[in-house]
Amino acid sequence: GERSVTNSPVVPEVDLWASGRQVGHLRVPQSRDDSGWGTIQVPIVVVANGTGPTVLLTAGNHGDEYEGQVSLLDLARSLRPEELQGRVILLPAMHYPACAAGKRLSPLDGRDFNRCFPGDPFGGFALSLAHFVDSVLLPICDYQMDLHSGGTGMDIVPSAVGHILDHPEMQARTLAMADAFGAPITLLLKEVNAGPTLLAAAENRGIVALSSELGGGGRLNPAALTITKRGVRNVLRHAGVLEGLPEVGEYGPSRRMTVPDLAHYVFAPADGIWEAAHPLNTTVQAGTPAGLLHRIEDPGAPPIELAYKATGLLWCARFAGRVKAGDPVAVIARDM
Amino acid sequence: GERSVTNSPVVPEVDLWASGRQVGHLRVPQSRDDSGWGTIQVPIVVVANGTGPTVLLTAGNHGDEYEGQVSLLDLARSLRPEELQGRVILLPAMHYPACAAGKRLSPLDGRDFNRCFPGDPFGGFALSLAHFVDSVLLPICDYQMDLHSGGTGMDIVPSAVGHILDHPEMQARTLAMADAFGAPITLLLKEVNAGPTLLAAAENRGIVALSSELGGGGRLNPAALTITKRGVRNVLRHAGVLEGLPEVGEYGPSRRMTVPDLAHYVFAPADGIWEAAHPLNTTVQAGTPAGLLHRIEDPGAPPIELAYKATGLLWCARFAGRVKAGDPVAVIARDM
Amino acid sequence: GERSVTNSPVVPEVDLWASGRQVGHLRVPQSRDDSGWGTIQVPIVVVANGTGPTVLLTAGNHGDEYEGQVSLLDLARSLRPEELQGRVILLPAMHYPACAAGKRLSPLDGRDFNRCFPGDPFGGFALSLAHFVDSVLLPICDYQMDLHSGGTGMDIVPSAVGHILDHPEMQARTLAMADAFGAPITLLLKEVNAGPTLLAAAENRGIVALSSELGGGGRLNPAALTITKRGVRNVLRHAGVLEGLPEVGEYGPSRRMTVPDLAHYVFAPADGIWEAAHPLNTTVQAGTPAGLLHRIEDPGAPPIELAYKATGLLWCARFAGRVKAGDPVAVIARDM
Amino acid sequence: GERSVTNSPVVPEVDLWASGRQVGHLRVPQSRDDSGWGTIQVPIVVVANGTGPTVLLTAGNHGDEYEGQVSLLDLARSLRPEELQGRVILLPAMHYPACAAGKRLSPLDGRDFNRCFPGDPFGGFALSLAHFVDSVLLPICDYQMDLHSGGTGMDIVPSAVGHILDHPEMQARTLAMADAFGAPITLLLKEVNAGPTLLAAAENRGIVALSSELGGGGRLNPAALTITKRGVRNVLRHAGVLEGLPEVGEYGPSRRMTVPDLAHYVFAPADGIWEAAHPLNTTVQAGTPAGLLHRIEDPGAPPIELAYKATGLLWCARFAGRVKAGDPVAVIARDM
Amino acid sequence: GERSVTNSPVVPEVDLWASGRQVGHLRVPQSRDDSGWGTIQVPIVVVANGTGPTVLLTAGNHGDEYEGQVSLLDLARSLRPEELQGRVILLPAMHYPACAAGKRLSPLDGRDFNRCFPGDPFGGFALSLAHFVDSVLLPICDYQMDLHSGGTGMDIVPSAVGHILDHPEMQARTLAMADAFGAPITLLLKEVNAGPTLLAAAENRGIVALSSELGGGGRLNPAALTITKRGVRNVLRHAGVLEGLPEVGEYGPSRRMTVPDLAHYVFAPADGIWEAAHPLNTTVQAGTPAGLLHRIEDPGAPPIELAYKATGLLWCARFAGRVKAGDPVAVIARDM
Amino acid sequence: GERSVTNSPVVPEVDLWASGRQVGHLRVPQSRDDSGWGTIQVPIVVVANGTGPTVLLTAGNHGDEYEGQVSLLDLARSLRPEELQGRVILLPAMHYPACAAGKRLSPLDGRDFNRCFPGDPFGGFALSLAHFVDSVLLPICDYQMDLHSGGTGMDIVPSAVGHILDHPEMQARTLAMADAFGAPITLLLKEVNAGPTLLAAAENRGIVALSSELGGGGRLNPAALTITKRGVRNVLRHAGVLEGLPEVGEYGPSRRMTVPDLAHYVFAPADGIWEAAHPLNTTVQAGTPAGLLHRIEDPGAPPIELAYKATGLLWCARFAGRVKAGDPVAVIARDM
Ligand SMILES: [Ca+2]
Ligand SMILES: [Ca+2]
Ligand SMILES: [Ca+2]
Ligand SMILES: [Ca+2]
Ligand SMILES: [Ca+2]
Ligand SMILES: [Ca+2]
Repeated sequence: GERSVTNSPVVPEVDLWASGRQVGHLRVPQSRDDSGWGTIQVPIVVVANGTGPTVLLTAGNHGDEYEGQVSLLDLARSLRPEELQGRVILLPAMHYPACAAGKRLSPLDGRDFNRCFPGDPFGGFALSLAHFVDSVLLPICDYQMDLHSGGTGMDIVPSAVGHILDHPEMQARTLAMADAFGAPITLLLKEVNAGPTLLAAAENRGIVALSSELGGGGRLNPAALTITKRGVRNVLRHAGVLEGLPEVGEYGPSRRMTVPDLAHYVFAPADGIWEAAHPLNTTVQAGTPAGLLHRIEDPGAPPIELAYKATGLLWCARFAGRVKAGDPVAVIARDM
Repeated sequence: GERSVTNSPVVPEVDLWASGRQVGHLRVPQSRDDSGWGTIQVPIVVVANGTGPTVLLTAGNHGDEYEGQVSLLDLARSLRPEELQGRVILLPAMHYPACAAGKRLSPLDGRDFNRCFPGDPFGGFALSLAHFVDSVLLPICDYQMDLHSGGTGMDIVPSAVGHILDHPEMQARTLAMADAFGAPITLLLKEVNAGPTLLAAAENRGIVALSSELGGGGRLNPAALTITKRGVRNVLRHAGVLEGLPEVGEYGPSRRMTVPDLAHYVFAPADGIWEAAHPLNTTVQAGTPAGLLHRIEDPGAPPIELAYKATGLLWCARFAGRVKAGDPVAVIARDM
Repeated sequence: GERSVTNSPVVPEVDLWASGRQVGHLRVPQSRDDSGWGTIQVPIVVVANGTGPTVLLTAGNHGDEYEGQVSLLDLARSLRPEELQGRVILLPAMHYPACAAGKRLSPLDGRDFNRCFPGDPFGGFALSLAHFVDSVLLPICDYQMDLHSGGTGMDIVPSAVGHILDHPEMQARTLAMADAFGAPITLLLKEVNAGPTLLAAAENRGIVALSSELGGGGRLNPAALTITKRGVRNVLRHAGVLEGLPEVGEYGPSRRMTVPDLAHYVFAPADGIWEAAHPLNTTVQAGTPAGLLHRIEDPGAPPIELAYKATGLLWCARFAGRVKAGDPVAVIARDM
Repeated sequence: GERSVTNSPVVPEVDLWASGRQVGHLRVPQSRDDSGWGTIQVPIVVVANGTGPTVLLTAGNHGDEYEGQVSLLDLARSLRPEELQGRVILLPAMHYPACAAGKRLSPLDGRDFNRCFPGDPFGGFALSLAHFVDSVLLPICDYQMDLHSGGTGMDIVPSAVGHILDHPEMQARTLAMADAFGAPITLLLKEVNAGPTLLAAAENRGIVALSSELGGGGRLNPAALTITKRGVRNVLRHAGVLEGLPEVGEYGPSRRMTVPDLAHYVFAPADGIWEAAHPLNTTVQAGTPAGLLHRIEDPGAPPIELAYKATGLLWCARFAGRVKAGDPVAVIARDM
Repeated sequence: GERSVTNSPVVPEVDLWASGRQVGHLRVPQSRDDSGWGTIQVPIVVVANGTGPTVLLTAGNHGDEYEGQVSLLDLARSLRPEELQGRVILLPAMHYPACAAGKRLSPLDGRDFNRCFPGDPFGGFALSLAHFVDSVLLPICDYQMDLHSGGTGMDIVPSAVGHILDHPEMQARTLAMADAFGAPITLLLKEVNAGPTLLAAAENRGIVALSSELGGGGRLNPAALTITKRGVRNVLRHAGVLEGLPEVGEYGPSRRMTVPDLAHYVFAPADGIWEAAHPLNTTVQAGTPAGLLHRIEDPGAPPIELAYKATGLLWCARFAGRVKAGDPVAVIARDM
Repeated sequence: GERSVTNSPVVPEVDLWASGRQVGHLRVPQSRDDSGWGTIQVPIVVVANGTGPTVLLTAGNHGDEYEGQVSLLDLARSLRPEELQGRVILLPAMHYPACAAGKRLSPLDGRDFNRCFPGDPFGGFALSLAHFVDSVLLPICDYQMDLHSGGTGMDIVPSAVGHILDHPEMQARTLAMADAFGAPITLLLKEVNAGPTLLAAAENRGIVALSSELGGGGRLNPAALTITKRGVRNVLRHAGVLEGLPEVGEYGPSRRMTVPDLAHYVFAPADGIWEAAHPLNTTVQAGTPAGLLHRIEDPGAPPIELAYKATGLLWCARFAGRVKAGDPVAVIARDM
């Protein structure tokens, strides 16, 4: 990883190349009516020592996903340079305006940061920051993991998430990193909205990269937090930046699963209140009831019954009670 | 309850005085730029038979509280006139615009419907509807129960909630109704924001009245739904509208508790991510840690530690991970 | 009419008591972030000469109703003091922010100005202006007419509109003024949203007062404009402020009709596109089709058929194609 | 038309290649704060039988244009597969969020869908949908017609609208299709805002394509609806998908006209209320009055008189009464 | 001042009756969608010692007026209890949401806090806080001063501002307090928007009370800050809470002036850019040019010239370059 | 400069190639819900005579910067064709929606117009206008100057601003033009947010081009206005379009300075009220106090002290009192 040349207007307050522990901000231009040259300060922590690989850990890609944010804040305070060989770059609240608001999307412009890669240096805050991450940080990394949860709307069985890759060696290295992370599930996913994600950007740069889904419901889930805190240290151990072997959770090694296609989703056909038939992490059968969609418009009418269209594990479930037409209410994963 | 004379512009499509089961709407004027004489249709169900008391059950006072809405929709479909003696009036999605949006506050005007009583016939949608409920529905009722949950922000141990009343007989009748409802807890509360609530309006009308808190977190909680469905039928049995005795939950009779004052609250002093030290429904000690408030602004600083200021049951807990300065993160109840 | 004492913060730039023709503004306080002592200028024209009654003519109560605005602008330019005996006060664009936006409701605060009477001197722009009209202008008037049309959403057969009054003499004087105005229809109406209207405020002040509905659809209807221009001069003739007798339209004397209750309305039960079965001003029969409500959600389902519930004249019809649940799509008037 | 390979994240619920009649939705990703993997359901109907060309008919490109939406909903219900030879693809409410709101522009992002082609698979809802239409639907079509009206602001003489093309054969085939559609006018137009339209996208794909203007004023015009319903069946007959010859309207064959340049427009130089001198569809003379622009700011000043700058047919007229500076109030067409 | 009984839902974290220096917050309920029982924390400082009068000093009534906020923050840190005899209550950022935004009006609801008195305990944040100030704080005060500046839009010669009172003794005591404050000018004003202000509320409670205007332009003016810091200590000395005599500024005793009526204002008749003819604090003549209003709409037209209508001191001048129709651009004061 | 061929939908009402003085508008398409073919009228003035170079002068790139707008309006009225040799093109209120609102950013879409170059013909109003300026106006120009000030947030010592260029001859010609303009300072700047600016676009077209900073604070600064009015005539003299030599200000020739990097900025680390230690245009020392950041959250805590990190002239200072984290509060320039 050499120092890249970039036209990014984003300026880091920390020296990405220095040893020791640095806490500072990325200064990202964001013009306001009352501050033409204003900037937004995105927190960054760099801890480096000796020689070794560079690992980039990010959280707060979506602002209402908290397990990653708290785990990286914890890591930012607790990592000591002298215990490292290599470099750890932490962005614990990456899409800062969304994190400060506790929202998935940016209150500045409604953008989903995970649809902004590889970015544009002058395309506004989100694209400008994505461009910096892609063109300055990713080129100096060997490993990257972006810590997601289900957000306000969904609850998800804690999982490392990777892509099915064409290149066997990269696939193997990705799965090895996922095994090290040690979530209950390792999911190889084609996302509904996939495309310009950080995970895809990292893969395009040839970096061993993972995303994850570590709880959800807009809350900080204590069990998922434990998994995440352990997982990020496991990744550093796997990379050789920290000493020692990855720790295995009480649930054992990760179960490898996939969500093959939209037939494994159940979508709400109309607005309503969703009453699920099963809790998350239940094994369910195609053709059996997934739940009831209650419609408040006409209290005399019965609720709409929805059924699973696939057999497998209820990996992701609608969390928020109120749904809109077109919202997924259940996603089924099956073993690979 | 005689037919009241009112200047309300709200018109019910159902005949409040007829026998049998009627499903319809209250037609509440709401002018739009493109529909000057537009109305909003608030669902109402009336089931009546023979002679007996009138019970008004309401849900969706806050739109993101689902246990009550689903329980009353269920009751609306399942109550058969012939099993009744008396009259049941159901408003399963009372503050309809908030319910349709799945939000606590109205998307029309940001109003909290439970701060709108006794209303104003020409004060806009919420005040106009509150005025109808207060001046038309309440005067014909003997019992009233308003079904709340904790909403998106809070999670609460399922509880019937009443006020501490000056009048001993009304207090006794209120507690009897709460006992019949049969939630795990009966709480006598002074709310932080109390004042112009439906509960206070009903009490002002001399009606035996309860509120409740039946779960929360912006989701439909299955356990709380079971309690609520049983509870509303219990109230009808208690009133003598349905035959039989109230059913007792597997947890036994309700535990009577109270929240005496603001010293039983823990408030976040700043914005941050709240990591609670205990799950809901834990007995906690004054002076011990309530949790950590993580601040993303400076990843080098430690989180803010907050402590309980009272001993008792963690009755209500912050659910959403992100909090703002001044948000309660814990409310402690103690036995009466 | 003596000079009233008022606590209104509204200041007229014209002298309400001077003879001749004055064109100016009412200066109504409206604080902005960048202009704490800002005011909004509401156009006012006063034309006075000799002795005689005072007539207040207002338009732009709702900003998207244009026949009245253009008629009063025309009158403001063409009335010569020397042809008058008495005083004419014109507010051609009364709720100025709504008029400037071409919207029914105020872009400042979403208020419907015709629900703001009798106002409040310090309740914000609309209430403050309503208070000035009610407490300063109405007390010096003998006659008042407020010029409405159907607005963006509705189209209405041109009509003078009055209230059914308890006092026979006032009713007679009101009908005489309506006859003089000379629209095709004189309608005695209880409005869906009635209450704090300018018409009611004027009646409360003991003034002979009318409202009107003069076309609609958010456009300037040439036929309705002709009726309105003639009508306002007719009112001045009727009051004796202008010489001569009221002119009768080619359609003859006004037909006296009423809309007795909500059973004369047809409401859309759901959102959709409204296809009316008949054009405005058609005589229709109870129980026959009023039109089809097309729902775009499911192109396989048939449209919802709605029927008239009363027999009479299709006096008011939904104009805009898209309707929301609860919108009236037809209002039937019947002869008195 | 072969099955195209696309990177579109839009998934159709119907099989574009199957015979028979299918009613379903396109599932278009649209992330919300409370539903990260949410989708919007865009209605689609496919009716196919035997062999023959594919015709794509679209409406609701702008949400406040209703003749096309209702005509395609009617066609969706009434077309029987057995009467076809070929395939008909219907999008009756294409830009669904705008259609559901009854607005020209999207309530999601303010976009004009007809400026979104050829789209971008990950550029947000509108661009993503446009990309699907362009990259998946257009390549399998032989004919395409996009049904517009004048919208809330404008009223337009019902017309098929095509572009002046460089390629003589395509021009001839386009005119033949327009003749078949059979509106009163066939207009060859350079639009004020032309550029990234569906019509241009279809032409770029080498498809015989038309747009149209079929009434306006934000209402469902019965006469224009009759023309549109007949026209879409005429297009299917012209393509050979339905049997029989196109039906001719009572007004005879289409009159071929054009709007050569901006000198055929009259623009409002300032905000005001527009009073047109002539109704739509009048033949007018350059240099004669087009109407009056009334300004409410100063009721003492005369209105601004505007004149036509070209001679021809008043093909398009401002409908809404209130105009802003820069709005066209009249567009003159002349015979070709 | 005895402890008042109030129904306010506002709870102070400080003990208003204790000796010493306390720093805390008023906890004011403000419900959000994601925090039903949320509160807003309004900073309050109480410093008390021995016996003596109570002085309430407030700033941040309007959020974009900074001299008072900084002066009270300074006082809050520097006042030592042992130097006092009596009690000082400081609200340095009273309308906290507006202060945090740096705006005159509340970002919560657009309210002008100085039009909210005497408040309403359950009328929403601003009314609830105003009610607390009026019903809890004012009754225990002997002196009150509310520190304003001109805000973003206006610049004003630093002045203590009082009302012309009917009661001679109160007038004398008010002027004595103003003399003690020692601004360059003491102005007795009838404000354009007067009415439900804190100053009027304090006067209604029989308290010796002042407002002020201490600079403006949305900036922290160093000269005005010096005057304000000295003035607030002077008020404490005048009340006898601090020892010593008030200090006189280098400009000598305050000049007593007034603004008699709207004829001393110059208002912009239209939107434009204001170019003033004179700087603030210039003596100007009636009938001479006040400045030019440049209109960008038509660069060929000359600017509108406005003239003063009164002779006196240019006491208040439009600061922001862009004005809207109805904005005051100059206010003339004359000696009393 | 030949007539360029462009696909711009923007149509000028003036003939860019005609002699004499023309005042008109650029007609830029901007679709609204109620005006699909609406346009926005951007004022343009062209004054041409004989042969000579073309100079483009623009103001209102940011709407809250007034010295340039007023100077160009003045020039538009006063320039007589007969005194010219060449052509002057004036856009006195270029980003018209922002100018009409008096805001830096567009009220239409929040865009910063100076980040929109080289534009996109169909990318919406701002990009479409930028594309016209870049592809139609710039190619026919020899000199271009874009008149900026500091806007609402910043105050800046009046300066011509140019870029440090690689090409020595262009650098020399740029400096010669800056010398002619004759502001107190000529600054060669790398802006914080640089990139897609008009200045960069002009340079990319090979045109001698300058920007400027001429005061600020959201006001029309009289001293800066004098400098600007003289400066724009000086530029025309320098270009040979007007006769005579540039006039020198009373302060003498421009001082050449630069801002080398972000170390010459002081940024606010948190939200607060900024109290500067020095007025604008003071020479300051690295390591000395730059000012105090007062935080209203906790009135007991001391303000945050910030220090300069570089020695030089306080060239740009925060004007507005309230700052947000990341806002620059001071920018230091040093002599080149
Ligand atoms: Ca996520
Ligand atoms: Ca609740
Ligand atoms: Ca009306
Ligand atoms: Ca259209
Ligand atoms: Ca103030
Ligand atoms: Ca600028």
